Amino acid sequence: MNYTKYPPADDLKTRWVRLQELLSEEGSDACLISSSVNIYYLTGMVFNGFFYLQATGNPIYFVRRPEDLQHPYALSIRKAEDIPDLLLKNNSGVPGSVLLEADQMTYSEHVRLQALFPDAKIGNATPLLRKQRMIKTSWEIEQLKYSGKIHAKVYSGIRDCYHPGMSDVELQSNVERAMRLAGSIGLFRSFGSNMDIYMGSMLAGDNAEVPSPFDFALGGAGIHPSLPIGSNGSVLKEGTSLMVDMAGNYTAYTTDMTRVFSIGKLPAKAYYAHQVSIDMHNRLISETKPGTSCASIYNYTLQMAADAGLSDYFMGTRQQAKFVGHGVGIEINELPVFMGRSVDLLQPGMTFAFEPKFVLPGVGALGIENTYLVTDTGIEKITNFEENILEL
Amino acid sequence: MNYTKYPPADDLKTRWVRLQELLSEEGSDACLISSSVNIYYLTGMVFNGFFYLQATGNPIYFVRRPEDLQHPYALSIRKAEDIPDLLLKNNSGVPGSVLLEADQMTYSEHVRLQALFPDAKIGNATPLLRKQRMIKTSWEIEQLKYSGKIHAKVYSGIRDCYHPGMSDVELQSNVERAMRLAGSIGLFRSFGSNMDIYMGSMLAGDNAEVPSPFDFALGGAGIHPSLPIGSNGSVLKEGTSLMVDMAGNYTAYTTDMTRVFSIGKLPAKAYYAHQVSIDMHNRLISETKPGTSCASIYNYTLQMAADAGLSDYFMGTRQQAKFVGHGVGIEINELPVFMGRSVDLLQPGMTFAFEPKFVLPGVGALGIENTYLVTDTGIEKITNFEENILEL
Repeated sequence: MNYTKYPPADDLKTRWVRLQELLSEEGSDACLISSSVNIYYLTGMVFNGFFYLQATGNPIYFVRRPEDLQHPYALSIRKAEDIPDLLLKNNSGVPGSVLLEADQMTYSEHVRLQALFPDAKIGNATPLLRKQRMIKTSWEIEQLKYSGKIHAKVYSGIRDCYHPGMSDVELQSNVERAMRLAGSIGLFRSFGSNMDIYMGSMLAGDNAEVPSPFDFALGGAGIHPSLPIGSNGSVLKEGTSLMVDMAGNYTAYTTDMTRVFSIGKLPAKAYYAHQVSIDMHNRLISETKPGTSCASIYNYTLQMAADAGLSDYFMGTRQQAKFVGHGVGIEINELPVFMGRSVDLLQPGMTFAFEPKFVLPGVGALGIENTYLVTDTGIEKITNFEENILEL
Repeated sequence: MNYTKYPPADDLKTRWVRLQELLSEEGSDACLISSSVNIYYLTGMVFNGFFYLQATGNPIYFVRRPEDLQHPYALSIRKAEDIPDLLLKNNSGVPGSVLLEADQMTYSEHVRLQALFPDAKIGNATPLLRKQRMIKTSWEIEQLKYSGKIHAKVYSGIRDCYHPGMSDVELQSNVERAMRLAGSIGLFRSFGSNMDIYMGSMLAGDNAEVPSPFDFALGGAGIHPSLPIGSNGSVLKEGTSLMVDMAGNYTAYTTDMTRVFSIGKLPAKAYYAHQVSIDMHNRLISETKPGTSCASIYNYTLQMAADAGLSDYFMGTRQQAKFVGHGVGIEINELPVFMGRSVDLLQPGMTFAFEPKFVLPGVGALGIENTYLVTDTGIEKITNFEENILEL
């Protein structure tokens, strides 16, 4: 399978053209981008500096570091305040309106950049880029498919990482090593300030009930109060489940996949709940096509959970997540979000994770998560791996 | 050694009293804190919500999630906009001036919080908290000493993780697993938007020369352009060095320690440069006491590098870092910073990393880094481990 680390020039250009269309629709002259995630999206690399794009013409890469970066569009700067003069020298002119990433940079950084354009109307670039990044280019889709392939390969090795008497953290440490050897970048990026996490999550038994402060589907106590999420040192116990939700960060684009393992046999109710999740995925696959609303998907999963008598266990117990899926890409949590009040409709090129999960007290978490691509006619599963509960 | 995961109540109270002193000096009525790092610092836990403290009286924990958090000071909220009414009901009153974390929250978040206090003067809490966190409480110092102890223990196992023919990433994967089994939390926190990293850094041979966009001492290409830092898949080669700088995140407080391993023997110049770094540490230990200026330390290391004929290799080659040390604590990069233009003077209770490093083309990175505590009479080394180059 073809896997290249750098996007082809035309794939990048497609993104610039699309961004320029959105700038024009917005009535903005330009955008000045500085977040790592959007610089990566717009250039295929990460540098310390700014990506500047006007409604027409080529971008400028204003680069602080690395100091010796060579690129046809790169101009070296020492600080942001160098930019206005360079724009004049470059015959770009000073923009009448500029978009900045107001939902990503700090207040102080934003105030500082506003001062570069004292007479300009300042707008918010973040929603524009989040909206654009919903529709993946063909290279981006290849990246996700590659990540999905390796993701499944690593999961197929999880049983080999296990021996009886292990704790969740010990198993996770072995799996993390396997992920790194398979090419996991380690870091995976998330949007927003309430998303502290590390490599993923393994929830054993009742640790799956413990609510976390972060905006993930489920929680877990974690091993330290300074990072209250995920595995907590529980020894894996006979008759309980282990929900494995580790990152698919084998390229810059991360797939999201959850599978359930069991230590010995589980009560019948567990297999029943797990099957209800699989049924939800089957319905998703058979019914979803371009135009399907995210809210309708959320609503029917809620209804299916109720029909199965499992409402009290759906997406948690003590604290129940109010979404059942989310876009994925360079960040683990992109648009659209699958919530009751979503207004988004699915379109070809969107990639999303669907994660209807249950938690049964005394047993643990159940259900599966897959990453899907929306095609012209339906959806395609990107994370392909055995979906039934696997005994460790 | 005593290691407790939660700070004692009186240790937390000490921090609140100190913050109230700083608020009064600043002439502010209150601060509203929402970053994970400062909520952890001020409460010993992480929740989604806000920590509110006025110049006198007890704090209020305004908690969104987890929804069922029980605490004497906790008030449940659904959104930030619930806060003003609760302050009135609580007889706290509306503050005339409030500090918000302008260098940590996004522009949009800040604007939203300003709207809660439309008549108040709004100031910046970030520098206040960064300044306060420079001086560690006794419990915080215990945490760092514990991290330092485990940090050294893990480093003592590095040779066992190695076999000839390995790449830097393979070795790092084994060491990361060892770190996790020893209690590494995984995530380690950093201040600022230009600090993407994962678990630490292993720089093999000439990969140490590759500049990174981030604000760390050295760089490395990384394994993927979306995270250009650290190990890059190089096979470890005879006659080159491997610089190991992995996190000491065994509590919420991370120690910072760097050691150098070699594959076989290195050229004489390498041992020479490494010794110059050790000499700098020896000078630091013999001369530093409360009142010593960070700038003077930076300046004499620059001078010692020049006297040794190694200026071109000090803190990098293609890109040379302009600092030689930094505070450590809950974040890897706290105050003070050891730069030429620093105005900070060292005080008892400060904890910092000192990392004079060299990179020799064709060989790799050399030198050591330790974490030190400033005492009433001098400094105490917290990261104790063999300092000479160790052959793998």
